[in-house]
Amino acid sequence: MADGAFAQALELINPHLYSVEERIRAQAKQFDPAVEGYVSYVCEKGGKRLRPVLALLAGGATGKITASHVDLAVIVELIHIATLVHDDIMDGAELRRDQPTANAKWGNAISVLLGDCLFAHALKLATGFSNTEICRRIADAAAEVCSGEIIQTQRRYDLKLSTADYYRIIEMKTAALFSTACELGAFISEANPAVIGALKNFGAKVGTAYQIYDDCLDLAGTEEEAGKTLGTDLRKGKFTLPVLLMLQNRQGGDLSGLRDLLLREDHVDEEALSEMLKQAGALQAAAQIARRMIGEGRESLVLVPENRYVSGLRAIADHLIGRIDRLA
Amino acid sequence: MADGAFAQALELINPHLYSVEERIRAQAKQFDPAVEGYVSYVCEKGGKRLRPVLALLAGGATGKITASHVDLAVIVELIHIATLVHDDIMDGAELRRDQPTANAKWGNAISVLLGDCLFAHALKLATGFSNTEICRRIADAAAEVCSGEIIQTQRRYDLKLSTADYYRIIEMKTAALFSTACELGAFISEANPAVIGALKNFGAKVGTAYQIYDDCLDLAGTEEEAGKTLGTDLRKGKFTLPVLLMLQNRQGGDLSGLRDLLLREDHVDEEALSEMLKQAGALQAAAQIARRMIGEGRESLVLVPENRYVSGLRAIADHLIGRIDRLA
Repeated sequence: MADGAFAQALELINPHLYSVEERIRAQAKQFDPAVEGYVSYVCEKGGKRLRPVLALLAGGATGKITASHVDLAVIVELIHIATLVHDDIMDGAELRRDQPTANAKWGNAISVLLGDCLFAHALKLATGFSNTEICRRIADAAAEVCSGEIIQTQRRYDLKLSTADYYRIIEMKTAALFSTACELGAFISEANPAVIGALKNFGAKVGTAYQIYDDCLDLAGTEEEAGKTLGTDLRKGKFTLPVLLMLQNRQGGDLSGLRDLLLREDHVDEEALSEMLKQAGALQAAAQIARRMIGEGRESLVLVPENRYVSGLRAIADHLIGRIDRLA
Repeated sequence: MADGAFAQALELINPHLYSVEERIRAQAKQFDPAVEGYVSYVCEKGGKRLRPVLALLAGGATGKITASHVDLAVIVELIHIATLVHDDIMDGAELRRDQPTANAKWGNAISVLLGDCLFAHALKLATGFSNTEICRRIADAAAEVCSGEIIQTQRRYDLKLSTADYYRIIEMKTAALFSTACELGAFISEANPAVIGALKNFGAKVGTAYQIYDDCLDLAGTEEEAGKTLGTDLRKGKFTLPVLLMLQNRQGGDLSGLRDLLLREDHVDEEALSEMLKQAGALQAAAQIARRMIGEGRESLVLVPENRYVSGLRAIADHLIGRIDRLA
């Protein structure tokens, strides 16, 4: 099994990941009792904990994994959960990690506030670092994530969105938190600037590739496999890489037909689009771009002195490539 | 004119308030160009800047007003603006400070994200303080504000809401930021703990009273005067102090009739309720409670050595009493 290395990487940080899970679970208790239930619902739904995994592996790649790395892992995951809660409101999504979303369960008003609460709480935890630089970078990443989401929302149904615009959006909304997890993992270990920069770059590339993968999944995956509502991007006018690549390569009547399909708010003909994507090889092209990015991220790891955790980071990258391969 | 002292208080901090305004205006430039316009729209709409005023006066009451006090004032106002953006979404409000709300202008999705952006940015600014305790308390207050709002939302249309529940909610959602502005104003000046505590208490009492006033305004004010959509509380099932006092004092058929009126979602008979409130003297009773709280806040200032800024804080308190008097 190709994923042996991936399993090994997780095994390596298993006790720390366990602490992260415990700590995330314990956060709910720090809220008012009236709010606790909401917090624990969205925090305990599991998820892949990708950002914590990266923070911990980056820590191990550059030294000993400490309580501060666990703190970092908890904080980046809480920020991620907060953005998911707000994303699901905007997407009108019903399902997340195989369970009803917060908005499906309690409505939009509670969900807006719940996201805010988690966000504020994560930043409160970040003030626990004695080095204020860490807290600053976390707040910075959080602001970047939100700005990226705003631009994405602003450009919905915009047929002039270029692939460059798309990359910029996903670098902000997704890669910023991945790269901060890796960068600060190394920063906490007091690694040298070149190593910190290399890990930051690794996180940025893997994060961008991950979002491309996730966007392909939304177009071509099955809900059963993904555990969340799919097809929401097109229904909400979010044109992601495969669609943009297809738009780039069409002219004349073909282009008009595709544009018409894409602009049909709320009743997208998913089958017709899926057929077009297949014929154009657009998913494959997007997948290829994601693979290339992961390759670039992998390459930047040559600057990091070798150990088991560095191999672990490579295994994460390879695992993502494997998932991309299965999809397209 | 009774408000001479109020005008004098503002005059006292005028150059600093001007810096706060400039700094708030400058924040928009720190966002991505695509986001800048949204940020400047919600930041430049003016408003009373009550929280900055308190932060600056508390600073002056305990020492020299420094750049750090201006930072604090900017940060608490940005957090306040972020919560207003989200409040307006939840209330479906169309008007704020005499202009269309962000949600009326750009829809809920952008507004959710805009609030998030402002929030993250405010906390990023807070990491600029060399003493991490300041940032922690600000994040703490922000989390408290959101938790208060959640509880409020959760208890909508809840006829079992007690006045004690109401006080708890408004202490969290409003007074927390007022008290943090005052407390940290003194903390930055390195005032002694008793003085810091006194100012914190002043902020908490004035903040609670301010929310009671604002809630009375929503029931009995005019939109022209308030510059925002009114009557939203009842339409959204938010039972505020005057309504709760009225519920407390009714029995039998009277109580059933009132309950029926209150539970009519979206088509509240505002005239009938307004008449009931008047007959019951409920606005007057709520106003009296607010005045008493302001008195308590004023009293706590005896622990703060006298100077012009301490008088300024009293003038703010008296000004609020004046506005309450005009309403009920």
